[in-house]
Amino acid sequence: MQVDSSGLQVLSREECLGLLSTTPIGRIVFTEHALPAVQPVNFHLDGRSIVIRTSTGSNLAAATRHAVVAFEADEFDSELRTGWSVTAVGQARAVTDPDEIHRLAALPLTAWAPGSRDHYIVVDAEQVSGRRITH
Amino acid sequence: MQVDSSGLQVLSREECLGLLSTTPIGRIVFTEHALPAVQPVNFHLDGRSIVIRTSTGSNLAAATRHAVVAFEADEFDSELRTGWSVTAVGQARAVTDPDEIHRLAALPLTAWAPGSRDHYIVVDAEQVSGRRITH
Repeated sequence: MQVDSSGLQVLSREECLGLLSTTPIGRIVFTEHALPAVQPVNFHLDGRSIVIRTSTGSNLAAATRHAVVAFEADEFDSELRTGWSVTAVGQARAVTDPDEIHRLAALPLTAWAPGSRDHYIVVDAEQVSGRRITH
Repeated sequence: MQVDSSGLQVLSREECLGLLSTTPIGRIVFTEHALPAVQPVNFHLDGRSIVIRTSTGSNLAAATRHAVVAFEADEFDSELRTGWSVTAVGQARAVTDPDEIHRLAALPLTAWAPGSRDHYIVVDAEQVSGRRITH
């Protein structure tokens, strides 16, 4: 078991991707008006890509266009004080190819927020890292 | 009830600060080596300041020095597909004044991660925004 300088267990890439596939909510981290910004999103892990569904005119769609973003998901147990977090960093791209949109629309990805969500953002998880707190 | 363009309920500053005081974990969002970075942290809301405890030599301590950062906390219910999120943006500062360190050390703020955590970072929640998904 590898441990980092903070005493947290370091997760392998496979463990990270496995954990990302267990949770429907993550947070996309980007820059907006030169300030750090973060927004929770529903997502689905499709291979090594994080697929996010939003609306075409959303701030998220505009701010993540051609940007390198971070994506984080985690799960913590307040009673046990344990948990894990996984962060992926990669290029975000808006999906414009009709065939790819058709394929992504068939994924088990439902946005909890109301309204039309027919715009897909894909983040390629180029760098993935994760930590676990156990006792 | 105010609703944003995504159909989410807009929370007031008071509601946001109230919700931040109900959860022990948030995520600090910053820039590291010119890339977006995010790290879960234990925190305590002290008035309108977010207090984070870390170790002096941590990446977090180095990367957030004199930086404007975002801080996010949320809580979602996967069954009900409801939840809230609050984001604060503000200047981060390392606490160096011995009297202030003494006062902060008395706060109910315990880091879940092991090891010494005698370095305090305070984020002044200058801009606070929050959303709630209800059905």
